[in-house]
Formats: sequence, structure tokens, C-alpha cells
Amino acid sequence: MQIKGEMLIGARAVRGQGRVIRGINPATGEALEPAFAGGAQADVDQACALAAEAFDSFRETGLEARAAFLETIAENILALGDDLIVRAMAESGLPRARLEGERGRTMGQLRLFAAVVRSGNWLDVRLDPAMPERAPLPRADLRQRQIALGPVAVFGASNFPLAFSVAGGDTASALAAGCPVVVKAHSAHPGTSELVGRAIQQAVADAGLPEGVFSLLFGSGTEVGANLVAHPAIKAVGFTGSRSGGTALMQIAANRPEPIPVYAEMSSINPVFLLPAALAARGESIAKGFVGSLAMGAGQFCTNPGLVIAQEGAALDAFVQTAATALAEVAAQTMLTPGIHQAYSQGTDQLQQHAAVNQAGVGIAAAGPNQCQAGLYVTSAEAFLADERLAEEIFGASSLLIKCRSTDEFARVAEHLEGQLTATLLLDEADTELARGLLPVLERKAGRILCNGYPTGVEVCQAMVHGGPFPATSDSRTTSVGSAAILRFLRPVCYQDLPPALLPEALQDSNPLGVRRLLDGRNGG
Amino acid sequence: MQIKGEMLIGARAVRGQGRVIRGINPATGEALEPAFAGGAQADVDQACALAAEAFDSFRETGLEARAAFLETIAENILALGDDLIVRAMAESGLPRARLEGERGRTMGQLRLFAAVVRSGNWLDVRLDPAMPERAPLPRADLRQRQIALGPVAVFGASNFPLAFSVAGGDTASALAAGCPVVVKAHSAHPGTSELVGRAIQQAVADAGLPEGVFSLLFGSGTEVGANLVAHPAIKAVGFTGSRSGGTALMQIAANRPEPIPVYAEMSSINPVFLLPAALAARGESIAKGFVGSLAMGAGQFCTNPGLVIAQEGAALDAFVQTAATALAEVAAQTMLTPGIHQAYSQGTDQLQQHAAVNQAGVGIAAAGPNQCQAGLYVTSAEAFLADERLAEEIFGASSLLIKCRSTDEFARVAEHLEGQLTATLLLDEADTELARGLLPVLERKAGRILCNGYPTGVEVCQAMVHGGPFPATSDSRTTSVGSAAILRFLRPVCYQDLPPALLPEALQDSNPLGVRRLLDGRNGG
Repeated sequence: MQIKGEMLIGARAVRGQGRVIRGINPATGEALEPAFAGGAQADVDQACALAAEAFDSFRETGLEARAAFLETIAENILALGDDLIVRAMAESGLPRARLEGERGRTMGQLRLFAAVVRSGNWLDVRLDPAMPERAPLPRADLRQRQIALGPVAVFGASNFPLAFSVAGGDTASALAAGCPVVVKAHSAHPGTSELVGRAIQQAVADAGLPEGVFSLLFGSGTEVGANLVAHPAIKAVGFTGSRSGGTALMQIAANRPEPIPVYAEMSSINPVFLLPAALAARGESIAKGFVGSLAMGAGQFCTNPGLVIAQEGAALDAFVQTAATALAEVAAQTMLTPGIHQAYSQGTDQLQQHAAVNQAGVGIAAAGPNQCQAGLYVTSAEAFLADERLAEEIFGASSLLIKCRSTDEFARVAEHLEGQLTATLLLDEADTELARGLLPVLERKAGRILCNGYPTGVEVCQAMVHGGPFPATSDSRTTSVGSAAILRFLRPVCYQDLPPALLPEALQDSNPLGVRRLLDGRNGG
Repeated sequence: MQIKGEMLIGARAVRGQGRVIRGINPATGEALEPAFAGGAQADVDQACALAAEAFDSFRETGLEARAAFLETIAENILALGDDLIVRAMAESGLPRARLEGERGRTMGQLRLFAAVVRSGNWLDVRLDPAMPERAPLPRADLRQRQIALGPVAVFGASNFPLAFSVAGGDTASALAAGCPVVVKAHSAHPGTSELVGRAIQQAVADAGLPEGVFSLLFGSGTEVGANLVAHPAIKAVGFTGSRSGGTALMQIAANRPEPIPVYAEMSSINPVFLLPAALAARGESIAKGFVGSLAMGAGQFCTNPGLVIAQEGAALDAFVQTAATALAEVAAQTMLTPGIHQAYSQGTDQLQQHAAVNQAGVGIAAAGPNQCQAGLYVTSAEAFLADERLAEEIFGASSLLIKCRSTDEFARVAEHLEGQLTATLLLDEADTELARGLLPVLERKAGRILCNGYPTGVEVCQAMVHGGPFPATSDSRTTSVGSAAILRFLRPVCYQDLPPALLPEALQDSNPLGVRRLLDGRNGG
């Protein structure tokens, strides 16, 4: 499939008239062909009007039809073949193996949501039968199901050009819920976006769905993105990116005549607590595992371990030494964009210049454009608690170690943190009571708590929470990864005394969809 | 129990230092004893600090203990005896039978949430067992449960001084979720609020819970209310009231350093569609039922039918005549407060003066202070579609009938509406296809769709949705009545590879709580 530099508005392919966007190969600085011209308000209007038009029909597609549609998207993405991988490599600087793995993850997500759609649990069917004889007042027949929220705006993320972009988790879960999707492509990988967009556009046509189920726009976040979020047809927003970008969308959404929910996954430094018994017993292997997690993919993960908390002493000194040795062998890796590389360099420069921070170790120096030199920095709990800036995310392979005088300071450091995607405990059995004391704080601060592992690596499954209190996300009640992500795009409707002929299939007495139901308050009805 | 004019901050009773609030008997205009002095920032701070302190302990109370606590609140409210009813009558102008019924409803809600807590469905337990042998990467052990969001601010509503106030649905569902509650009492019924507050305070003590589980503050919405919503310890807000009040709280919450969810139930005109076959066959009985719903409780219900849509013609003329006759016998009823009465009079005056609106019937004129004279007004679909003001809620026993030239205009009127709590269809079998065509629009517009009934009367059950798109509520994904209201105050947390000794009870392999679980994607695990 050829990349033509075109937006996809329903069934059409359209050249924009706005400012030109080009993919840039961060490994060389080379600007890639073709040019993509950004969209204008008229393009936003058209995509949103088509989405609104498609909504009532798409949201009532049968479970099987909608599941098959998601599976077709996965197949069409695979059918793009190596062209997709080659283009994504050029636009992101990410290596082939990573992108092939990410393609598998993207397809796996679509297939998981196909299974979720088929199960029908998300319909959350609740039936309260009529009680005509009840005194003093009879009870009506009341039935509840979940329906789709409406057309959803999705913003592609830079750091997962496949799995969190055009056909990523937000798009997959919104389509699964029955919401048409209008994607604002990330300007860092427009060619990859067009290819994947065409795969979805083809799937819409293959399934005979209304064309407005999917559109893909190019343009800047402040123009096309902001106009999209402000459009009256849009009823929810999915976003993965920076804190400033996410909070800007939250403000636009809150100030609309009809405010809408924004699901923004933004900023997290993912604290890792090294508990004393574990640190003493196996500090060396922990240090090596930690550096592996820190340096993976140039640290460009939302769940990158940006903060380590441990008690000072010989065991920690040994940990630092092992980590520094491991870091010294970490090759510099190309970052996703020149902008991301520049922000990383500024962030680590500020750490280096901070009076209370020391450098504990660095990776191999950059040997080409936009390369990330990994780094581990050290400060005291006292200094950390005194300076809010030290808790800000530096996107990339850098981490700050907080030396505590005693483990009593662990909870204070934890309480001081803003909301996080993850919190990690490295522990041995002797650390159990200390961990038990920390857990309530960590539960309040993070969406996922993990033991004896590292936060990078987010399983796509039923139990995953990739979310957390602000600013990790804009809405701690949700996850953007895993099957529960579908719940973001649903709302309940109650049907009272509807004639059987008008009842939605999910709510009919005979349970033709075979879904899980709560019948008069009892499970399994 | 004596009413002392005191706020309840944790286990203490405190006299405020702020501006004096007094209950006013709307039937007489009499100011009631005692005086209540409003709270200040320091009171907000103390209540919130105690709530934050209580949170980690309260949210981990066992299911049985928390359910029993809710039941104790219900018993303590009943134990207040007739003093509560007499005081609520004096402060609200509502008749005894209504308030006794509302007390029963309030206790019923608390008991429903006790049953909901015991069932444990709300924990939404999801277990994805480890797959150590999976290639290329093993899967960790992942377990998800829902935990309480944090301390919740609840604003009492004027129109249900028991069921939507201090111990109303918001408080009951927040406590059920494990959230401490700080109530800002409605200034229209401070004595009722204090009595109920003391019943809750006593239940907290009886159950041996930390005192911060409940506090009750007095003061104005713009001072104490705004400061409460802005307080960093508060993690969600429950509100029932005016659109201006609700949107003001939404703005405060969105502009906090850490934005929080606001569940505001605000404004709805609850359209009632009279479908032609039903209107022709039984317009007279529909007219009588409609007037009964319109006039009940002086129309002071969120679900009051403020809009009727029908096709012009002889059947409609007969409906209007019957409705006017029925209305002429409706006695004027005392409204809740002088302010509500004044707003109602202004609203109906504006309708009367509107060039495109005619009065079709009125109730008996007011014979005492603050009485509501019911009214039915008529306009054309054309005029309605041309003037946004005609779709604004008038809180009280007034309704506007939209005459359509044909049933084709029904969908246009429906599309024109803002979000609603309810939409009603009066229909016969011959109306089925017309109703089928309207349903998708109504599903997008309303939280509850009902047939051949009236929207007043909101059953407290599993399937109820008392919610809907903005401005009916601030968050269409939720309901403020019924068991699903608990979901507003929860967020998911994922536990990865936790040692069994650290796993919350709900997530342990043996399922000691006996809750519904999703095990490896299968129900009933």
C-alpha cells in the first residue's frame, strides 16, 4: 500500500490544505517523503458529522459483527506487511524487533477486544422484574444496559507508533464499545498513521459499516486537535502524551457547552522501593534488572522507573556500584523525535546542575543525532521532599535514587508523590511488614502495584490497570490498557416497562445474547 | 434528640462562627429556632483532615462490618422518631405522609447499599494467573479489584430533605464504597440535617469506626461549599441541585491542581411523547395521569414532566381539555423555599408573556405564602425549536406542550433537546414503529426511557438510572439512584505478583469473600 500523504475522512482520502507535516528519521535527521498537509476546521467538521451519522447504526451492530470487524482490522494491519515496519522504523528510530513485537501487541489488543465484545459482560445487564402486587406502590419492570457514549476523538502517542496510535488501545476499546473514532495522527509518524488508517478504512468497508465509523486527520494539536475536542459531536477523548498536552485537552473539554470526559494518560515517574532485606540479599541482581528496565527502549515508556527509594548503607552502596557498572555498558539509543531528545537533555542537565543531586552513573555517550545517554542520579529524601521539581518526569532513560536515612522515610516519600501509573516493591519475606505498611499509601497513589519485577512491560489482559490518580491520568477510575478500557466509552440506560417488541436484544427475557445478568439482585440470572 | 444548631466535625459538635442560617417555614414565613452559624475554612480543614485520616482504615473494613454500619444508620434515623418528621415538615412545607414515605425510602437506600456491599460485585475482581512458561515472555500474576476513591463531599438537596440530603443516596453510596463523607448541609433544612447527622455520627461511634468517616458542615455554597470542593483531601463530589450550582462546582473541581470528578444532578425537563394511537385511544386517562404526575409535590421533582410532545388534531384538543379540567382542581401547594417559589413564578410569568406561548390551563390560585399554582402551557414545534429559552427547566408544577404538525417533527424536537434524566413514550401497539424510530434519539438524550407511565417516581433498585447526558448530570456514565451509584466512588487497582501474605482478601486464591470473579477471562471463576 502506498503512502500518499492523505487524510482519511470516512471512505474518502483527502489532501489537507494546512501547514505541511513530514516524518523525520531521528537517527539521521532526514525529512521523509511524502509531505502531509494538515487539516482545517472543515475537515474536522466533516469527519465529526460522518461519525455522528454513523453512531446510531454502529453502536447497535451485533456482538459477533463488531468482534469480527475488530479482527479484520488486525488482519488488515498484518497484511500491510513489512512496509509498515520499515516506515515505522524510519519515523520512530525504534528497532525492527521492537516494532514487530508492537505490531503483535496491537493485533493482540484488537483480538482481546473482539473477545470482550463477544462476552457481553460490558453490557452490565441488570433486570428488576415488575412487582405489580407490591404495596404501597407496585414496581415497574426495569432493565439496564450500557450503550456507547458517542463519537470519540483519539490522539496517537509518539512512543508506541502502533500500539497506542491509530489502531491502538484507545481506538480498539472505543470501537469495541460501539463508538465511531476520529483519530488525530501524531505528527511524528504520519506515514505509519496513514498506512494503519487505510487498514481500518478498508475494514470498515469490508464489514459494510457506515463510513463515519473511522476517520484520520493530520494537523497540530493546538489547531486540529483542539477543534476536534471542542466539536459538539465528540463525546469523549482518548490521549496518551505529555502532561501539558493532556491538561490542555482537559481544559477544552471542561469548558465546552457540554463538557465531556477526557482519558489522558500523561505523567508518571513510577517509584521503585528497594526494601532492606531484598536489597541486602540480592542487591546485585536487582541492580542489573533495574538498569535493564530503565534503559529499555531509551526509557521511552510511560512506566519507566524514574524514581528509586532505598535506605542508605552498605547494601545500597553496592547496589549503586553495580548499577553504575551496568549503566556504563548501556549503548546510547536514538530517541523518537528531536523534540523528545531535547527535552531529555534539558531534564538531565537540570539534574546535573542541581546542588543536592549527584550523578551515580551514566551510559555510553551519544554517537549520533538524537541519542539518549542513560543516567542514574542520587539525592537525599530531605532534598527530594523540599523540591517539587525533583518529582517531575524526565521522559527517557534517567532515574533518580532517593537515599533515606531510615525506612521510616519511605512512607513520607510515597505520600509526597503525585499520582502514578505504577509503584514497585522489591522485597523478601523479612520485608513483609514494611511492605504492608506502605501498601495503603501506594494504593492511593498508583493504579498498579507490583512486587519483585519492574514496571515496564504492561500486560494486555483483564486485570491490567494502566491508569492512576492525576497526573498519571486525568481519570483514576479508568485504565487505558486491558479489557476494562472499554468501560470508558459506555454509559448506562434504564428501560422501564418497554413492550418486548421495543426492548434491546441484550435485555430480552430469553437472554438471546447469552450475557451475564444481574436478575433481581442475584448473579447468574 | 435536641437540635442545637451545631456542626458535626468527626466526633465533636461545634458551633460555627460564620453568618447565621435559620430554617424558614415556607408555609408561614416563620424563622425557626435555633440559629445555625455557618462554618469557616478552619472547619472545612478539620473535617477534611479527619476524613483523610479515616480513609485507609475505613476503606478496608470488612464487607459485613460496613454493611452493618449502613444498617445502623438506617435504624438510628428511625430512632429519631417523630421529631425528625415534624422538623422536616416545618423546614420544607412538605406534608407528613410524603416525609414518612421519604424516610422509608432513605432507610431502604441504606439497606440496599448494605446488600450491595455484602454481594461484593462492586469489587469487580479480575484474576489473570501467571503463565511462567508463555513464550516469548512469561505472564505475571495480575489481579484487579476496585478500591474507594477517597473522602467525598456531599451537598444536600432541597427537594428531598431526607432521601437526597445528609443520609441520602450520595452519602449512602459513598460510604458503601468505603469513602468518608463530608456533607455540606442544605441551608433550607438545617435542623433536619443536624438530626440526621447526629444519627450518622452515633452510628460511626457504635461501629467503632474512625471519627472522620462523617462530618456535617453548615454555610453557604459559595464559601463553605466551594472551599470543600477545592480541598486537596476531597476526591469526589456528589451534588443535586440547580444547573448554575452544579456547573460552578464542576469548574472548581476542574481547576484544582488535582482535578476530581463531580457527580452533579442538575437540570431536566423530562419530555413526554404522546404517540398518536395511544392519544386517540385513551387521551383522557393519559391526561389525568399526566396532571397527577405534573402536580405531585408541587412539581418539585428532578423528573417532573416539564415537556409534552404531541401531534395537533382533535385527539390532542381533547387531551388538553381534559388536562385543563383536571388542573383546575389541583390545589396550590407550598413550595420548599421562598427562593424556589420566586424562581417558579418568574419562570411561569415569562412563559405567559412569551408571544408564541399560550396558557392551556392552571391550577387553583395560591392562598398562602410560597404556594405553587400549577400550569400547562402550549406552543408550536416551530416556536420551540426557534427559542432555546423554552427548553429551560422551570422547577415546579409547570409543563409546556409542543404541538407538532406531524409526527415527523417528534424526532426534530427530540434532537433539539439537551440531555435529560428521562424520556417517556405513551404508546399503543400501533405506535410501535414510530417509537422504534425515536428510541435511538432518546437513548442518546436520556438516562431512563419509560413507556406508558410517568417519570416521577424513581425506583431504588439495581437497574435504575437516575442520570443522563449534560446538563441532566455532569457525568452521563453514572447514576445517583440505585445500586450502580456505588460505582461513582471507586477506582481499579491492579496487583502484580504480590506475595499471598500481602494480597487483599478480595483477591486471594481461595475467594474468602465469596465474590463474583472474572478468572482468566471466564465468568464464575
